[in-house]
Amino acid sequence: MKLATLRTTDGTRAVRLDGEVLVDLGAPDLGALLAQEDWAAKAAAVTAANATTYPVEGADFAPVVPNPSKIVCVGLNYRNHIQEMGRDLPEHPTLFAKFADSLIGANDDIVRPAETEKFDWEVELALVVGAPVRRATGAEAEQAIAGFTVLNDITCRDWQFRTREWLQGKTWDSTTPVGPYLVTPDELPGGVRPSLDVKLIVDGEVMQSDSTGDLLFDPVALVEYVSTMIRLNPGDIIATGTPGGVGHARKPERYLVGGETVVTQIEGIGRLENTVAKEAAA
Amino acid sequence: MKLATLRTTDGTRAVRLDGEVLVDLGAPDLGALLAQEDWAAKAAAVTAANATTYPVEGADFAPVVPNPSKIVCVGLNYRNHIQEMGRDLPEHPTLFAKFADSLIGANDDIVRPAETEKFDWEVELALVVGAPVRRATGAEAEQAIAGFTVLNDITCRDWQFRTREWLQGKTWDSTTPVGPYLVTPDELPGGVRPSLDVKLIVDGEVMQSDSTGDLLFDPVALVEYVSTMIRLNPGDIIATGTPGGVGHARKPERYLVGGETVVTQIEGIGRLENTVAKEAAA
Repeated sequence: MKLATLRTTDGTRAVRLDGEVLVDLGAPDLGALLAQEDWAAKAAAVTAANATTYPVEGADFAPVVPNPSKIVCVGLNYRNHIQEMGRDLPEHPTLFAKFADSLIGANDDIVRPAETEKFDWEVELALVVGAPVRRATGAEAEQAIAGFTVLNDITCRDWQFRTREWLQGKTWDSTTPVGPYLVTPDELPGGVRPSLDVKLIVDGEVMQSDSTGDLLFDPVALVEYVSTMIRLNPGDIIATGTPGGVGHARKPERYLVGGETVVTQIEGIGRLENTVAKEAAA
Repeated sequence: MKLATLRTTDGTRAVRLDGEVLVDLGAPDLGALLAQEDWAAKAAAVTAANATTYPVEGADFAPVVPNPSKIVCVGLNYRNHIQEMGRDLPEHPTLFAKFADSLIGANDDIVRPAETEKFDWEVELALVVGAPVRRATGAEAEQAIAGFTVLNDITCRDWQFRTREWLQGKTWDSTTPVGPYLVTPDELPGGVRPSLDVKLIVDGEVMQSDSTGDLLFDPVALVEYVSTMIRLNPGDIIATGTPGGVGHARKPERYLVGGETVVTQIEGIGRLENTVAKEAAA
């Protein structure tokens, strides 16, 4: 299944992609759907004939889960990228947080804050949690993955490196597109450990290109690791890290400016297309 | 006013301390109360005579705000402590996050995870946001501070320093007591920039003792700074950092073990008293 949260004139709705239409699943958003224990069976049972539908064409996507209780992001996690930087493979994943207010929809403008000069991109495979877990075993972690989506971990590099903690470069308001779809593992080669091409393209130029098969800590390992410390709730998001090719690491450095179009895509999962909107100075 | 979130047999309730009783303010928790634009006037208008009351004696406090959209924590922020460590005063506050699932009530057991050997304490003055703000001016930041509470930023030092990002040492489930009361600035010397004694005591031994007047970035400055990057919502918490005396910096190092009692207190604001409960290994 491909699931999403759609903005309608009556607020957001959880929907399932069904050919050319989005089928209303009877929940206000995907977070509310996933909070139901039997969400997968419920979502599969709804048919276009007996539910409200919306055209895919022109759909206005909200963040795939608008208000997750946690967004956990992973630092260096692509082997090729770590090794090309001359670093040793880390023993543990590096984790940092984003707040839900940083999220935007798949086609929303990315608001470039007036306060940054170094506004950068990061394509990431993100997993969405579908069941509550704490100290998950491998099997429990596999079961707890509802599916995957695409996230662009837009970063203000100048703020990221102001201090030794990255948070303040990572959680600017309305800068992180996520979506459009959550794709369940049964639709993906590799299932809960998918091996898929990831790409990030700025105004037609490919900036990042790699495969999620290169992840050092795979999605199942990340659910196990994070749930060791804190419960994961339905709708929670883990962004699995970005491959090489970010603007900050290019020579010369290259950053996003107003008016550019950023395409962030993962084969078989989805495609974000966002215009960079330069914020007026206060 | 002193406000709190009380656990009752019918769920949590927002309450105001009124002598020996807690007066029900008609909201399910303090987060819901603070989300009402005129919360201060509403909370002040309720009288013990026309509302449900609960005895203070034996009160079971929930986290002062059970489910904030953000918990932003500040790293090194006490001048004395920074200088005694031989460091320069930083130009910007160091920020990291906690998730709401780390919070516990003022007298709940602190669950010491089986996975840590270095379970440490950090007394902190925490501010609670009372109005939505983004890019707050100084005057807006002052107005946006609903009040102050006490937070113990319990930390698994071994996990904090596994990687270069602190998050994984900071957000273990059910480890961070916060409360019992939110005290409005009008009740405090210094108002929104209070100068108050802070103390942390383990089994009767004073481990940390300082004054919030020593903060490098004061509460108003922190609201301005954080709101530059992201909107702050009513109920959001900013923990302002800890003074010297943590277990990790002692010689020899000293950490919490099962059965100890930790008292975390700030003059005029409140007192957390928690027993360290050693978690059974899985």
